[in-house]
Formats: sequence, C-alpha cells, structure tokens
Amino acid sequence: MSTADGTPQRDPARLWESRVGTDLSFLLARANALSLAAAHDALAPHGLKVRQFSVLAIVADGLRPTQRELAEFLRLDPSQVVTLVDQLQSRDLLRREPDPTDRRNNVVVATPAGISLHDAARADVTLAEQALFGVVDPRQLRDLRMTLHSLAGPATA
Amino acid sequence: MSTADGTPQRDPARLWESRVGTDLSFLLARANALSLAAAHDALAPHGLKVRQFSVLAIVADGLRPTQRELAEFLRLDPSQVVTLVDQLQSRDLLRREPDPTDRRNNVVVATPAGISLHDAARADVTLAEQALFGVVDPRQLRDLRMTLHSLAGPATA
Repeated sequence: MSTADGTPQRDPARLWESRVGTDLSFLLARANALSLAAAHDALAPHGLKVRQFSVLAIVADGLRPTQRELAEFLRLDPSQVVTLVDQLQSRDLLRREPDPTDRRNNVVVATPAGISLHDAARADVTLAEQALFGVVDPRQLRDLRMTLHSLAGPATA
Repeated sequence: MSTADGTPQRDPARLWESRVGTDLSFLLARANALSLAAAHDALAPHGLKVRQFSVLAIVADGLRPTQRELAEFLRLDPSQVVTLVDQLQSRDLLRREPDPTDRRNNVVVATPAGISLHDAARADVTLAEQALFGVVDPRQLRDLRMTLHSLAGPATA
C-alpha cells in the first residue's frame, strides 16, 4: 500500500498480529475504551460525565446507597465519590439524607430533577450502546453479559 | 444482617439490583478494572506499569511500530506514547530507529534487555490473568475473546 504521494503506508491492522492482540485483558481494555467514548459523547449534551451518570443512575433507582457503597460498587476512591456527589448535589440532582437505620451515615437520594435528567440521559446512552454492541448478535451479547457477570459480578465485590 | 455491635449492615451486593448492574458498559468497565488491577500487581515486581508493558510487548514481538501506530492501537494520545517510549528507552529496554521505508519516521525496536524483561513480565501477567479469568470455563473464554474481538478488534481501529 502507498499513499498518493508515494509514501509507503503500513496496514493499520498489522499490530493485531502481536500477542497483545489476542490478550483478553487488552481486548477488554479496548472494548471498555470504545464503550466509555460512546457514553461520553452521548452524555455530553446532558452536561454529565460518565462517572456522574453512574452515580446518578444508582441513586435514581431508589437504592439509597451510602457514599461508601457507591465507592465499592463503582471501584472508585471514597474521595472521588464525595466529589461526584458534591457536583451532582450542587446542581440539585441529588441530596444527602441521614440514614434512618444508622444516623451516623448519610445516604444519597435523587431529586425529581435528578430522576428526569437520568431518564433522558439513559435514553441516549442506550442508543449509543445499541450502536456499539449491535455489531454482535443478541445471543452473543447475552453470553457476553453472563460471562462478564461471572468475572466481575457481585461475587467479586 | 447486623455487626457484632448491633449496627445494621446492608447486603454489599444490593446495588447490583440497580439497572447499572446489568449494563454491558458497566460490566465491561468493572471487568477491565479487575483485569488492570491484576496486571498492575503482577507487573510491579518487574518495575513496569501496565501501559509500559503494552508498549514493550508490541515492540518485543518485532513489529517495529511507529509511535503513531502505537498510539492508535493502544488508544492513547501520541504524547502519552512519546512519554512511555522515553521511559522505556531510558532503561535501555527499547530504542528508536529510523524507518528504512520512510526516513522521516522512527520505529521502535526492543533491545535484548527489553525482550528478556518482557518475557519474564509476561509469564507473571499470564498467571494473574489465569487466576482472574479461570473462574469461567474455556469455551466461555473462547466466546468472550471472539465477541470482544468483534466489538473492539481491527475493524474498529
């Protein structure tokens, strides 16, 4: 292959011949990078970053998590979760409330505005994911979800 | 559930009931985080970070990539690749050579020390991956590799 000016051009796919190209960890990292980029683009019009959306989504489902639970579930530092909750709270999308079962703790609760924004953002994230994951058939996707759940699901919490 | 002092304790798995818990993008992110953590721990005794190892692995396979090719393949900024190549070059693990097919470009080539370190590091990374991915059976892993390759393989470069 060569370009119009005669410069030799490499096959952009040739690095896939390296052993890295079949490493599961590398393929996971690349699939995750593509998924993050798609979610990032879908969320930008809603003024949300991917991590903010993850927090808002859990809270919007009414699970009333503590900040520690959010950190463990999302595999973030507790200080990162405090920052994310602060950012969303300053936009009145969620609020902290004392936990009735342990008043030393706060739980995080969505506001009506947070639930609305979440629902609108989720619709766009879902479309972006369908575009990304739609290249494989539904049976493969079901198997992918099951395998990832075995690798990274509740038992690995 | 409650702890010894009578504090009510939540089920740590309960956040998996949120819609996020079945999102493919979330499961991918979590599986990737676990895989990165395992690789990080396996590489630490070799004095390598995960991204340094990825660069070294491609170079050790003799593919003579340009820095631009490395950036595209690893989905990093070209400036990040320059930094990684500088770090590895300062340890005499690789070197830049003029590309014989286009002398305006450099290609990146492993030194014998780089190949040795790569081989030792890869052995430990492989053990760590076997521990992580060994919880699912070989047929599922083969399907996982195929599906991830469809989602994030050469056609998506």
